[in-house]
Amino acid sequence: MLLTELLEKLDAKKDRIIEIRRYLHENPEVSFQEEKTAAYIEAFYKDLPVDSMETDFDGQRGIVVTIKGANPGKTIAIRADFDALPIKEETDLPFASKNEGVMHACGHDGHTAYMLILAETLAEVKKQLTGTIKVIHQPAEEMPPGGAIGMIKAGVLDGVDAVFGIHVMSMMDTGKVYYRSGNTQTGRSYFNLKIQGKGGHGSSPHMANDAIVAASSFVMNCQTIVSRRIDPFETAVVTIGSFDGKGQFNVIKDAVTLEGDVRTMSHESRDIVEEQVREFAKGLEASYGVETILEYKNDYPVLYNDPGVTEQVQKALEQASIPEVDAVEETVPLPPSEDFAYYLKEKPGCFFYVGAMPEDRKWYPHHHPKFDINEKSLIISAKAMAAVVASFCDSEK
Amino acid sequence: MLLTELLEKLDAKKDRIIEIRRYLHENPEVSFQEEKTAAYIEAFYKDLPVDSMETDFDGQRGIVVTIKGANPGKTIAIRADFDALPIKEETDLPFASKNEGVMHACGHDGHTAYMLILAETLAEVKKQLTGTIKVIHQPAEEMPPGGAIGMIKAGVLDGVDAVFGIHVMSMMDTGKVYYRSGNTQTGRSYFNLKIQGKGGHGSSPHMANDAIVAASSFVMNCQTIVSRRIDPFETAVVTIGSFDGKGQFNVIKDAVTLEGDVRTMSHESRDIVEEQVREFAKGLEASYGVETILEYKNDYPVLYNDPGVTEQVQKALEQASIPEVDAVEETVPLPPSEDFAYYLKEKPGCFFYVGAMPEDRKWYPHHHPKFDINEKSLIISAKAMAAVVASFCDSEK
Amino acid sequence: MLLTELLEKLDAKKDRIIEIRRYLHENPEVSFQEEKTAAYIEAFYKDLPVDSMETDFDGQRGIVVTIKGANPGKTIAIRADFDALPIKEETDLPFASKNEGVMHACGHDGHTAYMLILAETLAEVKKQLTGTIKVIHQPAEEMPPGGAIGMIKAGVLDGVDAVFGIHVMSMMDTGKVYYRSGNTQTGRSYFNLKIQGKGGHGSSPHMANDAIVAASSFVMNCQTIVSRRIDPFETAVVTIGSFDGKGQFNVIKDAVTLEGDVRTMSHESRDIVEEQVREFAKGLEASYGVETILEYKNDYPVLYNDPGVTEQVQKALEQASIPEVDAVEETVPLPPSEDFAYYLKEKPGCFFYVGAMPEDRKWYPHHHPKFDINEKSLIISAKAMAAVVASFCDSEK
Amino acid sequence: MLLTELLEKLDAKKDRIIEIRRYLHENPEVSFQEEKTAAYIEAFYKDLPVDSMETDFDGQRGIVVTIKGANPGKTIAIRADFDALPIKEETDLPFASKNEGVMHACGHDGHTAYMLILAETLAEVKKQLTGTIKVIHQPAEEMPPGGAIGMIKAGVLDGVDAVFGIHVMSMMDTGKVYYRSGNTQTGRSYFNLKIQGKGGHGSSPHMANDAIVAASSFVMNCQTIVSRRIDPFETAVVTIGSFDGKGQFNVIKDAVTLEGDVRTMSHESRDIVEEQVREFAKGLEASYGVETILEYKNDYPVLYNDPGVTEQVQKALEQASIPEVDAVEETVPLPPSEDFAYYLKEKPGCFFYVGAMPEDRKWYPHHHPKFDINEKSLIISAKAMAAVVASFCDSEK
Repeated sequence: MLLTELLEKLDAKKDRIIEIRRYLHENPEVSFQEEKTAAYIEAFYKDLPVDSMETDFDGQRGIVVTIKGANPGKTIAIRADFDALPIKEETDLPFASKNEGVMHACGHDGHTAYMLILAETLAEVKKQLTGTIKVIHQPAEEMPPGGAIGMIKAGVLDGVDAVFGIHVMSMMDTGKVYYRSGNTQTGRSYFNLKIQGKGGHGSSPHMANDAIVAASSFVMNCQTIVSRRIDPFETAVVTIGSFDGKGQFNVIKDAVTLEGDVRTMSHESRDIVEEQVREFAKGLEASYGVETILEYKNDYPVLYNDPGVTEQVQKALEQASIPEVDAVEETVPLPPSEDFAYYLKEKPGCFFYVGAMPEDRKWYPHHHPKFDINEKSLIISAKAMAAVVASFCDSEK
Repeated sequence: MLLTELLEKLDAKKDRIIEIRRYLHENPEVSFQEEKTAAYIEAFYKDLPVDSMETDFDGQRGIVVTIKGANPGKTIAIRADFDALPIKEETDLPFASKNEGVMHACGHDGHTAYMLILAETLAEVKKQLTGTIKVIHQPAEEMPPGGAIGMIKAGVLDGVDAVFGIHVMSMMDTGKVYYRSGNTQTGRSYFNLKIQGKGGHGSSPHMANDAIVAASSFVMNCQTIVSRRIDPFETAVVTIGSFDGKGQFNVIKDAVTLEGDVRTMSHESRDIVEEQVREFAKGLEASYGVETILEYKNDYPVLYNDPGVTEQVQKALEQASIPEVDAVEETVPLPPSEDFAYYLKEKPGCFFYVGAMPEDRKWYPHHHPKFDINEKSLIISAKAMAAVVASFCDSEK
Repeated sequence: MLLTELLEKLDAKKDRIIEIRRYLHENPEVSFQEEKTAAYIEAFYKDLPVDSMETDFDGQRGIVVTIKGANPGKTIAIRADFDALPIKEETDLPFASKNEGVMHACGHDGHTAYMLILAETLAEVKKQLTGTIKVIHQPAEEMPPGGAIGMIKAGVLDGVDAVFGIHVMSMMDTGKVYYRSGNTQTGRSYFNLKIQGKGGHGSSPHMANDAIVAASSFVMNCQTIVSRRIDPFETAVVTIGSFDGKGQFNVIKDAVTLEGDVRTMSHESRDIVEEQVREFAKGLEASYGVETILEYKNDYPVLYNDPGVTEQVQKALEQASIPEVDAVEETVPLPPSEDFAYYLKEKPGCFFYVGAMPEDRKWYPHHHPKFDINEKSLIISAKAMAAVVASFCDSEK
Repeated sequence: MLLTELLEKLDAKKDRIIEIRRYLHENPEVSFQEEKTAAYIEAFYKDLPVDSMETDFDGQRGIVVTIKGANPGKTIAIRADFDALPIKEETDLPFASKNEGVMHACGHDGHTAYMLILAETLAEVKKQLTGTIKVIHQPAEEMPPGGAIGMIKAGVLDGVDAVFGIHVMSMMDTGKVYYRSGNTQTGRSYFNLKIQGKGGHGSSPHMANDAIVAASSFVMNCQTIVSRRIDPFETAVVTIGSFDGKGQFNVIKDAVTLEGDVRTMSHESRDIVEEQVREFAKGLEASYGVETILEYKNDYPVLYNDPGVTEQVQKALEQASIPEVDAVEETVPLPPSEDFAYYLKEKPGCFFYVGAMPEDRKWYPHHHPKFDINEKSLIISAKAMAAVVASFCDSEK
């Protein structure tokens, strides 16, 4: 049986997954600048029996490898992202980032590692496969507009019947795999607000217009969006992730740029947040006499897992009896947004989650400078995705 | 008569002052990094008949040139500063900064230019001088602890009887020279507050601790120091000049560093501000669960002009009948601080002001990206300081 | 059949329900001071064939009437609240409040009106009833600790098998009745924060300590509890409903009292809010040098409808075929808290909702000075509760 | 000599001053409602040999008594105010306020007490007087528009050559009298801002518009007026003395009214504050979607003591050799505003200050619930004003 063989082969390669993951972890690159990472992935496939490899998506980076089964059938896509974050790593891992200020703090190193080995293995058994598998290595999941949208525009989903992805999760138990049907991760909006005051000497505020004070007032005002404007039974998050106001202590800052991150689980909430952010920007002009330039983008949509496909994924995972997997459970909805949501707007599919909590259960959230994953989650990811692929593409079925 | 000769000689060199000022303006260097500027000044003196030149002040940059008069007498020091600011110039001057992000936005280019030509001229007439003139070219006026303190520690004021300095002022009328007796410019304190929260994913504020929100609250709280804690008849300024919170929009910022600038005209106010800043830092820990590290330094003292010396300066200026000077006036106290105050803590002296408002009266405050001076102020500065020097060192008097 | 007879009898009395409601509306009394309202209710029962009436609950107001069916059976309790709010009515109803500053802005006038007529009717048909019905007229639902808790302590639920209540809802469609199983309304906490500064002359802030500024800072800080501390998928509300800072414009306010209302749907969220409010109070002391006295009470629990009982209620409502009821629907969870939750902590039961949106669909939220209900909701309430009673106590069943 | 006799007579009556002051202290009345106090003053004069008494000033309360000297001469006016404040007294004086919530917390009880006895004494010696003395008992100094303006419109200053007044000062040393020439007390503006949001249930902020949050944001914004908009060498105070937001904890507040007190020492600062308050009100509308109604009044002007008259006052005080007076000193400018400034806009004159610090030097600022004065200040006030009167009206001079 296909799945049995896949699991055995993967089991034999589990140290190589870890090796690859560590190499990638040590060499992170931020979104849209993943040059060496992309080259590494390309090089990996060089001598493998894959049927084709694309590496240019209308000028955007990315690698898509096609593996054709012996028998005609459906086409499924499986995706892993490979970008890192502009975070200064604070772990003391022996393979910590060598690229100062850049870190794989979200597990995309692990995604890429398991996917490479899984793809290699699928290529090895392709005679037993029905249908076609597209392996999508996607850049820039972390930075809007995200890498998915460009690859989709360039046609990676053409002819695809279903699309799948995995995220490893540091706060979920290692040994468990999680699914959820319907709305599963938040949609995201992004804003950039430039607040232009008037610079001047630190000792003469009356002759200047202090952009830092205006911006601080805006940050405090923004807290009232979630606290006062959103239905308490709805979900919304407004984070000002960047307050770019570095200057000299004795010069009144002339301009500050804020960057905001908005998460919602409905169109209504998304609109309320946008309207209120726009009003606070106008209010800042009226109150503080500053000029504002607001760029506001509704970005990654709500991630929607197709109920039918998700049911099949759940069953595939349950029936696979992967030894490392103790339980397959439904998860609560998850706050982060994911540009995988774009694939799911185009095609039915399922994005699911593999627990990766460290052995000692001292975990750090994703995007934390001390973020780490339990590397057992990597073989679990490989086997879980193998189970899903087998469920859709086993020629014996 | 000495003064007449000085004024004639200076008048003949006024284009050279402008030339030097423009060269310096085009080549600004920030405080404590004024390598090329210092070299330029040293080179200027190379072949001049000055009596000595020092360029090392216990490892700190600076140039002090000594000009000895023919007759023994008092020793006076005249000082010009030569550092620039980390500001991106936004003038469209043909000689705008070629050093991106650095700008002479406070007129120190002009100070140095007039002082070089004045020193050259004094050296030419030294036979007519009584006593000794020390010309102090000082670095790093803009950045605490300031360049003055190091030079004083290294002994530049040893044996000095009185010390003088000029600042050109963009908001004061060109053609006027201003003096003030007693407390004239504010004292300054500096603080650096690191606010350490906990980073995390932008979508999950409850698992992180947002340092940008805590810091914004601190900025708003700080506004109440001047509005509620300071006697309305006293002077105090609390400016947060730097809010270093640049990050990625979707990562909750783990730490923010603020830098603050405090100006006061009395010890009492200085202590009140310090105490309240310290309490707000503690309050932030209690309120927001962040950790704070506060460095607080009482820096440049209040600038105090000796009344007797100032009276002599006033009279010297009035009696000099400099053709470019329409009026000699008392100024109100001035908000900026000046590390010249350190010289005046050690020795009696007078720091006075030369109007430099542009011809079209469209002026920008000091430290503004569009700051500019009327270059007529440079010959006025040279002649005004010449008048002061002559008043103290004319051998015929 | 019992239900048929009940519905017919109620139908004949529907104008009396409206009459009673209007009388009560015109004569509102605030929580714990409902003297005349209680007397009115008592008087209503005077000549009715009820089996007993209690009016003292360990010193607390309230009326409980017992109606015993001919046959032994279960005991159920049905409850209506009768207090009003300290709100100045702004409707132009002909029967608007005659008690300036007090208003039935939550529909308790309607609850009492339908319940009186329903009780009268049940008493008329008691020979057909199985079991015992306790009719609970409860005071002070609007003000913590609420009237329910005292009545429960005094024993009103002794021997009761199930408990039921209705709320009329201005924002829900008239003609619809709504139910929900499990957690249905939020739990509530209450806090009272006295902020003691130091009074003084409005012109001399430095000699006083402004309690209004400290309190305003606290209000702004509190917005971050929901925006930054609560899981975005959880429910929490923190409202400062009262800022008692009235004073004279030229006197710095020495003390301010804030009152806060907290709603949550879980113990975890309830604890997080409490902890953060306590920290902000401490932080205010550290930041502003004020003294604070914080009283914090965890009040009405989450309202939990028993799933089995709720299912029976749903079926009873659906099968009753009440002509005025177009639909019986599940409702989303509701933000308000209800002291009916205390009954449901002791006994299984169900609190359900009757739509009362005005004919013109211009509705105001509960507690709004222009709040009004569609009076059709009153006969619907009476009939719906009759259907529930019949379902539990019909001797023919 | 007139002054000697006046001082002796006053000395003999000093216990009566204290008696009157205590009676008034026990029976305070707020501004524009000083009915009994006015009646008391009128009654006091009933049998005294004053030349006339007026008690109606175009419908406004007030008592003006005229004392004509034997010889014709200049007319001077001496004024005392008699209103109290809406403050709940917290002293434990045996003669503490019997009028709950009203208190003489500014010393006007003392002003009236010394003035009555001084007027009585002047009437007794009127044969020795040259010129005419108008004794002005003025109501409502504490509440804009103030009592002075109405009395002036009604003509009390007609024919007056100079006008004088005293304020007792709890923070100044008892035994000292203080004067200042030129601008001496701040000008005042007043504002009333109604912020109209939308009420609603405390649990549903998204369906309401919370006026308390908007108002708190406004209070925080207002702190930036003094901290960022006013020249640090100028004087300005912006106090929000009243935040009328009392409500019920579980009802979102629909409207809040703020009252503000503004003090400045120049027209420029006055205009800057007004403009910024107006902008913050507009900004609140833009930011929070509330409606605002702002009433802004420029009220009591800067109090300007005529230099010539003040010099005469100073000399009179110094030469009087009043035994209880240790020193006559110049005071710094004083933050409070005074409607005596209106008299000084019309006529030359001098408002001066009598130290009244309690014996134990534990003093509370004016308008504090524990405010008290050293009663020695009362005989000093009487004698000091007698010295001024004698200086202007002694027929022997």
